[in-house]
Amino acid sequence: MNKINPVNQAKAFNKAHQPSQPLSEVELNSLHAYWRACNYLAAGMIYLQDNPLLQQPLAVEHIKKRLLGHWGSSPGLSFMYIHMNRLINKFDLNAIFLAGPGHGAPGVLAPVYLEGSYSEIYPDVSQDLLGMKQLFKQFSFPGGIGSHCTPELPGSIHEGGELGYSVSHAFGAAFDNPDLIVTVAVGDGEAETGPLATSWHSSKFLNPIRDGAVLPILHLNGYKINNPTLLSRIPHEELEALFIGYGWKPYFVEGSDPVLMHQKMAQVMESCVNDIRAHQQQARASGKASRVIWPMIILRSPKGWTGPETVNGNKVEGFWRAHQVPLSAVHADSKQFSMLEQWLKSYQPETLFDSNGQLLPELKSLAPKGLRRMSANPHANGGLLKRNLRMPDFKHYAAHIKQPAKMTAMNTKPLGEMLRDIMQLNNTTFRVFGPDENSSNKLDAIYEVSKKLWLADYLPEDANGGELSPDGRVLEMLSEHTLEGWFEGYVLTGRHGFFATYEAFVHVIDSMFNQHAKWLAISEALSWRAPIASINLLITSTVWRQDHNGFTHQDPGFLDLVVNKNPAVTRIYLPPDVNCLLSTADHCLRSENDINVIVCDKQAHMQYLDMDSAIKHCTKGLGIWDWASNDKGQEPDVVMVGCGDIPTKEALAATALLREYFPTLKIRFINVVDLFRLTPESEHPHGLSDNDFDSLFTLDKPVIFNFHGYPWLIHRLAYRRNNHKNLHVRGYIEKGNINTPLELAIVNKIDRFSLAIDVINRVPKLKVAGAHAKQLFRDNQIACCQYAHEHGVDMPEVNDWVWPYD
Amino acid sequence: MNKINPVNQAKAFNKAHQPSQPLSEVELNSLHAYWRACNYLAAGMIYLQDNPLLQQPLAVEHIKKRLLGHWGSSPGLSFMYIHMNRLINKFDLNAIFLAGPGHGAPGVLAPVYLEGSYSEIYPDVSQDLLGMKQLFKQFSFPGGIGSHCTPELPGSIHEGGELGYSVSHAFGAAFDNPDLIVTVAVGDGEAETGPLATSWHSSKFLNPIRDGAVLPILHLNGYKINNPTLLSRIPHEELEALFIGYGWKPYFVEGSDPVLMHQKMAQVMESCVNDIRAHQQQARASGKASRVIWPMIILRSPKGWTGPETVNGNKVEGFWRAHQVPLSAVHADSKQFSMLEQWLKSYQPETLFDSNGQLLPELKSLAPKGLRRMSANPHANGGLLKRNLRMPDFKHYAAHIKQPAKMTAMNTKPLGEMLRDIMQLNNTTFRVFGPDENSSNKLDAIYEVSKKLWLADYLPEDANGGELSPDGRVLEMLSEHTLEGWFEGYVLTGRHGFFATYEAFVHVIDSMFNQHAKWLAISEALSWRAPIASINLLITSTVWRQDHNGFTHQDPGFLDLVVNKNPAVTRIYLPPDVNCLLSTADHCLRSENDINVIVCDKQAHMQYLDMDSAIKHCTKGLGIWDWASNDKGQEPDVVMVGCGDIPTKEALAATALLREYFPTLKIRFINVVDLFRLTPESEHPHGLSDNDFDSLFTLDKPVIFNFHGYPWLIHRLAYRRNNHKNLHVRGYIEKGNINTPLELAIVNKIDRFSLAIDVINRVPKLKVAGAHAKQLFRDNQIACCQYAHEHGVDMPEVNDWVWPYD
Repeated sequence: MNKINPVNQAKAFNKAHQPSQPLSEVELNSLHAYWRACNYLAAGMIYLQDNPLLQQPLAVEHIKKRLLGHWGSSPGLSFMYIHMNRLINKFDLNAIFLAGPGHGAPGVLAPVYLEGSYSEIYPDVSQDLLGMKQLFKQFSFPGGIGSHCTPELPGSIHEGGELGYSVSHAFGAAFDNPDLIVTVAVGDGEAETGPLATSWHSSKFLNPIRDGAVLPILHLNGYKINNPTLLSRIPHEELEALFIGYGWKPYFVEGSDPVLMHQKMAQVMESCVNDIRAHQQQARASGKASRVIWPMIILRSPKGWTGPETVNGNKVEGFWRAHQVPLSAVHADSKQFSMLEQWLKSYQPETLFDSNGQLLPELKSLAPKGLRRMSANPHANGGLLKRNLRMPDFKHYAAHIKQPAKMTAMNTKPLGEMLRDIMQLNNTTFRVFGPDENSSNKLDAIYEVSKKLWLADYLPEDANGGELSPDGRVLEMLSEHTLEGWFEGYVLTGRHGFFATYEAFVHVIDSMFNQHAKWLAISEALSWRAPIASINLLITSTVWRQDHNGFTHQDPGFLDLVVNKNPAVTRIYLPPDVNCLLSTADHCLRSENDINVIVCDKQAHMQYLDMDSAIKHCTKGLGIWDWASNDKGQEPDVVMVGCGDIPTKEALAATALLREYFPTLKIRFINVVDLFRLTPESEHPHGLSDNDFDSLFTLDKPVIFNFHGYPWLIHRLAYRRNNHKNLHVRGYIEKGNINTPLELAIVNKIDRFSLAIDVINRVPKLKVAGAHAKQLFRDNQIACCQYAHEHGVDMPEVNDWVWPYD
Repeated sequence: MNKINPVNQAKAFNKAHQPSQPLSEVELNSLHAYWRACNYLAAGMIYLQDNPLLQQPLAVEHIKKRLLGHWGSSPGLSFMYIHMNRLINKFDLNAIFLAGPGHGAPGVLAPVYLEGSYSEIYPDVSQDLLGMKQLFKQFSFPGGIGSHCTPELPGSIHEGGELGYSVSHAFGAAFDNPDLIVTVAVGDGEAETGPLATSWHSSKFLNPIRDGAVLPILHLNGYKINNPTLLSRIPHEELEALFIGYGWKPYFVEGSDPVLMHQKMAQVMESCVNDIRAHQQQARASGKASRVIWPMIILRSPKGWTGPETVNGNKVEGFWRAHQVPLSAVHADSKQFSMLEQWLKSYQPETLFDSNGQLLPELKSLAPKGLRRMSANPHANGGLLKRNLRMPDFKHYAAHIKQPAKMTAMNTKPLGEMLRDIMQLNNTTFRVFGPDENSSNKLDAIYEVSKKLWLADYLPEDANGGELSPDGRVLEMLSEHTLEGWFEGYVLTGRHGFFATYEAFVHVIDSMFNQHAKWLAISEALSWRAPIASINLLITSTVWRQDHNGFTHQDPGFLDLVVNKNPAVTRIYLPPDVNCLLSTADHCLRSENDINVIVCDKQAHMQYLDMDSAIKHCTKGLGIWDWASNDKGQEPDVVMVGCGDIPTKEALAATALLREYFPTLKIRFINVVDLFRLTPESEHPHGLSDNDFDSLFTLDKPVIFNFHGYPWLIHRLAYRRNNHKNLHVRGYIEKGNINTPLELAIVNKIDRFSLAIDVINRVPKLKVAGAHAKQLFRDNQIACCQYAHEHGVDMPEVNDWVWPYD
C-alpha cells in the first residue's frame, strides 16, 4: 500500500508556496528576451515571406498571400521549451521535448532554430537574415514544411497531427533511459481524447530505477478551434483532484503577466526536476522500485498569448479566435495591416537580433550546447542510438516435423520461448507489449525471464500466478492505444519491441498505425534520420478461432488498411505454422523502418514444414508445396492456394478430397506467407514479377485462393495479374455468430467441402463427373453443422483430419 | 463557477455514513434468494446441457462438452440488476441497464429470464424445466447465443464485445429522455481503455431539465483475463479523487459478505436515486439548467463472487482465475466434478424454483412488471419509440444553378441550414455531433436555432462568439469516440442524429463503426427489434483540401473499411455538389438501420446540377452527364468518370481539355454518387445489374475513373464487371506533404493534365496524334507546381477554371 497521501501532499504544496523569485533580474530579462525572440519568429512564420527583421517598413508584398499556421498555442510551447532549456543548463539535464498540441510547430521551430540545430541540418535555413527569411517562407508553404512537429523537425519524435498520443509516446521514450527527462506539452484539446485520457495512467508503469522520467505540462490554453476546452472550465479543485486521482502530483502555473509567469514557471519546473531526481535517487539508492507519485505541471496561460488582444472589437488573445491566424485580413484591411506591424514590432526584434539576423550573443548563450540541445539530443533521432538486437538462433525453437500435416501444435508457444530469450539477451533494449493477453496468446514463456511490470499495490495472492514484478519488462494494460503509443515512443528512441494483440481489436489502433506509417514514410526520405527498429505487430486470436466469442470478435480487416499505406514501410505475413512463424518473426525483429504485421493464431494448428523448408518457403514468401501437389511439374488443372493457418489446412483437406475422388485431376498447391508477393513488383518492393507469378499461378487455369481475411483484398492486390479472371477467392464474408470453428468456416465457404465444390464448378472436365461428389460434400457440410449444434463441438473425424499421404 | 465543493462533499458522505439497514429481514432474504437464483442460472448456463434443476444426481452427460462463458463478472452484474429492480418497484422508475463488462452475459441473461421477457420473445426458452434446459444449453453453444449482451438479448442496447463504449452509449440513451435512468455497469478492465477513460466527462453534457440520468456502477471486480486492474490497485483516496476530478460524486460499496453487501448496496443505490431526483427536481423547478455533480457507485466485490474459492490449491474466487470457467476439468477430474455439484447446490435451487422449474411466486413478485422490466423497456428497443423526423423540403436550400460547372459554392453550408430547420422541427429527437468542427465544417447555421451545449463554467467573453448554451442541442467534444458512442446510444433508443467529422480522423472510430455495423446486421434478422434510425456520418475536410495541413490529415481510407461490412447496413455516397448533397442527406435522414457515409468537402467547390437534375441523378446513384459528354448516344471512344467533388471537377476539366485538343474524340462523362452501384447486384442491394453497367461503361472502351479515395477500392468493387480490364483508376496514392490543392492533385495524378494524358495513352487513335498535347500537359503540370512554390497559391487561371461550353 502506498503510504503517501497524495491529496494532502499536493494540496499543501500548492497552497503553501508563495511564488518565490528564483530568477534574478538579469536572468529574467534575458529569458524574457529569448521568449520574445521565439514569439517574433513564430509570428514571422505565419505572416512574412520577406523583410524578416522588419528592417524596412512593412509592405503588403512582404506578407504571404495565403496565411496559414496556428498562433494559438505557439507562445506557450516556446515558454515551456525555454524554461526547460534553463534547467538543462543549470542541472546538465539530458532532456527531450514532445509537443502534443497539433498545430503548434512555430512555437517549437522557433527555439530549435535559435539553438542552431536547424541550420546544421538545413544549411539554407541559416542563422542570418537570408536563413530567417527562408525559415519564415517555408513554413506552411507549398514545397515547405508543415504546421506540426513533423519528422523534418530536428528533435521531434511526435508529430501531433492526430491528437491523443503525446503522453504515451513520452513514456515510451522514457522507458529504459534512466537519465532522460521527457518533457511533454499536452494540449487541453488533445486532453479530451480517449487515448490521452487513459495515458495518464502510464505513470504506474514507470520504474524509478531503470526508467527515466516524464514531465507532462498540461497546457490550459483554454480553447480548441471554436470551443472552450473541458479541463479549462472546471473548478480548480476538480482539476486538482483529477490529476491526484490519475496518480500525479500537480503543480499549477497560472496567469498572463510574463514577468510573474516566468518566475512561477522557473520555480515550479525546478521543483519538478528536484522531485524527479529525489524520487530517482531514493529508489536507486535503496535498490527497491515502487510506484512514484510523479510531478506534473498545469500551465494556464492565454491562447495566443502576447498577440493582438482584440480585432474588430472581438476578443482574440485568450479566446478561441487566437487559434489560427489572429489577423486574417491584413492584405486588404489597412487597420489590420498596421496592427500586424505593431504586433511584430512589439517584440522589438532589433533588440534581439543583430542587423545580419543573428541572435545576440548574450541570448545565444542561454541555449544548451551540443547534444544537450533538445533539438540535437540523439534520443530524438533514435536510430543513432539503436543497436541491433542480440538474437538467439530461431531454429532452436523449431517444431520437429517429420512429415507435413500430420500433427498440430500451438503456433505462438515457441515464439514465446524465442521472445523470452531475446528478452534475456537484450535486457535494456527490448520490450513486449500486450493488452492483458500474453498468457491467453500463449506467449507466457516470456515470464520465465521477465514478469509483467507492476508498480501499483500488491496482494498476497499475487505470489501464486500473478506473474507481476516491479522489475518486469512485459507491459500489459487494457488499452491498445497506450501500448501502441509506448511501443512507438520506445522504437523512435532507438529500441526494439513486440506487440501481440487480438485481431478484431487491432482496429482500435487503426489510426495510430496510419499515422506511424506516415511518419516512417517521410522519415525514410530524410538522410539525417537514422533508421529505427520496426513495429512488430502479432495479430492473433484470429477470426477463424473466434467461433465461440462470436461476431464482435471476428474482423480480419486490419490488413485492408495496411495495404493503403506507403509500400516502403508496410509488410504483411501470414505464416501457416510454428516454423514459418519463427522464421518470419526473426526476419521482422531484424528489420528497420517497417511496420510488420504478422497474422497467426494462438491455438493448436496443423504443422506443415520442417525448419529448413520453412526458411526456404518464407524467404521466397510464397511457393508450391510439392508434397501436396500432384501436377509433377506439369501444367495443373487447378491451382489451390492457402494463405493463413486455417485457410491453408482447409485448402489442403480440399486437395486431399479432390485427389481421392478424382485421382487424375492435377492439382498444384501453393501457400502464401508474404502477402505483398501477390502485388506487381512495380507496386511494392516484395511484389513478384509477372513472369514468376504466371509460372506459379498459370495463365488460364482456375485458381482457388483460400484467404485468411476479407476475400476482396486478394483481388485488390492481384487485379493486374494475367490470370486474374480465373482467380476465385474465398475468405471471411462477415458471417458468423456462435459457431464451432468448422461451422464458421462453412458459413463463410472457406471449408474443405466448399473449396472442393468450387474446383468442381470451375474445372471443365469435372462439371459432369463431379455431380455426385458435389452432393456428397454438401451433405457433409450439413452433417458437420448438425453435429456441432447437437454436441457443441466439431465432428472429430473432420476436426482431427491429417494429410492422408506420405 | 460551480459553488459545490465536490471533494469535501463526497468525502464527508463516504466517511460519515455508517452502513444502515434499509432492508428488512424479509426483504433481505428474498432479495438474496433472487440473487441466488440468478447465480444458479449463470453457473448453469456455463455448465449444464441437461438436468437443469439438479433433480437427478449430476452426471457427466449433463455437462456440456465444451465449457465456454465467463463466470467472473456475472454475479456482480446480477447483483446490480436486481438492486435496480428493487428501486424500480419502490419508486416506479423508468430504467434500463447496460452491461459494459464484455463476457458477463450470464449475469444479465439470468435476471432477464427470471422476469419473463425472455420467454415472451423466445417461447422455446419457457419459464419451466424445458425452457431452463434450453436457456442453459443455448448459451455459448453453436447455433445458440453469445456470451455478451448481444442484440438477441431483450433489454440490451450495448453488446460489450469490444470494450470502452458503455458510458457513452448510456449518455446517448439518456439525452432527451427526462424520465429515464440509465444504469450502466462499467468493468474495471474496460475502464482502462481510452474511450471509456474520457467518456466520464459526458456528465458535463447532461442537462438536468430535459435529459434523463445516468447511474454508472464501476465494478471493481479486480482482474482482467490474467492481470489485476489498475483502478482496483490504487489507494482509496486516489480512486475517490479521480472520480471527483471527473466531476462525479462517488459512493463506495465494498466487501464480499452478501448480507452486508445487500444492505450497503440498497442504501447507496437509494441515495443515488434520491440524489438524481433531487437534482432534477431542483433544476426543473427553477427552470435553470446548470452542471450537476451526479452520483456514481464504485462496487468492489470479488471476481467470481460465490463461486469456488480455491481449485487445486489455487485461489479462484476473488482472483483472475475466476475470469472464465472456474472448474474446467469437471469431465475427467472427479474432485472438480464434485466441487461443481457442490457449488451448484450451494444456491439451493430447490428453494428457489418449484419442481416444474418455475420461480417461486414470492420471488417472482420482486421483479418489476410489464414495461417497467428493464428487459422490456421500450427504450431498449428504440425502434418501437422512433418517430420519423419531420423534414423540411430539402429543395428549399438548393443552390440556384443555371448552367453546370460555372460557379462555386460551399457544399456543406446549405446543409447546415437544412440541419438547422430539422433541429427546429424535431427539438427533442434530433442531435448534431461534431468534434469542435461544426463551424469549421460550415454547418454553423445550425447555431441560429440551437447552440452548442455547455454546462461547465462560463466566462464573459462567451457572450460574443461562444455560441454556447446550457440548452444547446449540438454536442461538441474533442473525442470522436465519445461522440460516436453518444450518437449510437441516441439512435438505439429511437432518436435521430447527424455526425460531421474530419476525414483523416474518422479512423479513430473505425472499430466503433465495425461494431455498430455488426450490431445492426444481427438486429435486422430479429423480427422483434424495430428498425432504428441510421447513423449519418458526414466525412468532410477531405484529403484533397488538406494540402496545407499536410500528410497526417490526408487519409480517405475509411471507405475501405466500410465495404467489408454487411451490405444490408452499409451505404457510401460521394455527392459532388450542394444539390446532390442535400438530396443525399434527405435520403439518409429518412433511412433506417443503415450506416450512411457521406463524403463531401466543406470548402468552395464547383457546382454542377440544378435541383431537379440532382434529385434524378442521386436517385439513379450514377449516370451520364449529357452536357459534359459528346458521344450523343453513340458508343464513345473513352468513358471519363468522376466520383467525389474535386475528382469530378478535375475529370471535367480533363474532358474539356481533350475536347479542345481532339474535337472528334467521343467522350462519355459519368458521375458516381452512390459508390455501391459499382458492385454487382448480387453483392449489395444498390449494385447495378451487369446489363446496366455494360451500357454505361461499355464492353471494351477505356474507362478513366477519377476517384476520391484510394484507387484500389474501385477495382475491388468492380473486378467482376465485363469491362474491368479497361478500367483505369486514379485516386489518392499516399503522396502528399505541404502542397496547394492543385499540386496535391498532380502528385497523386488525379489532376486534369494527368487524366488527359491517361486518355491519350489509352485511346488508340490518339497514341500518335496526342504526342504534342501530352507534352503540353506535362509542361502545364510543371508550371502549376512551380507557381505554387513561388506564390504559395494555385495558378489563378487553372484554379478559377469553369466548364467552357454552354
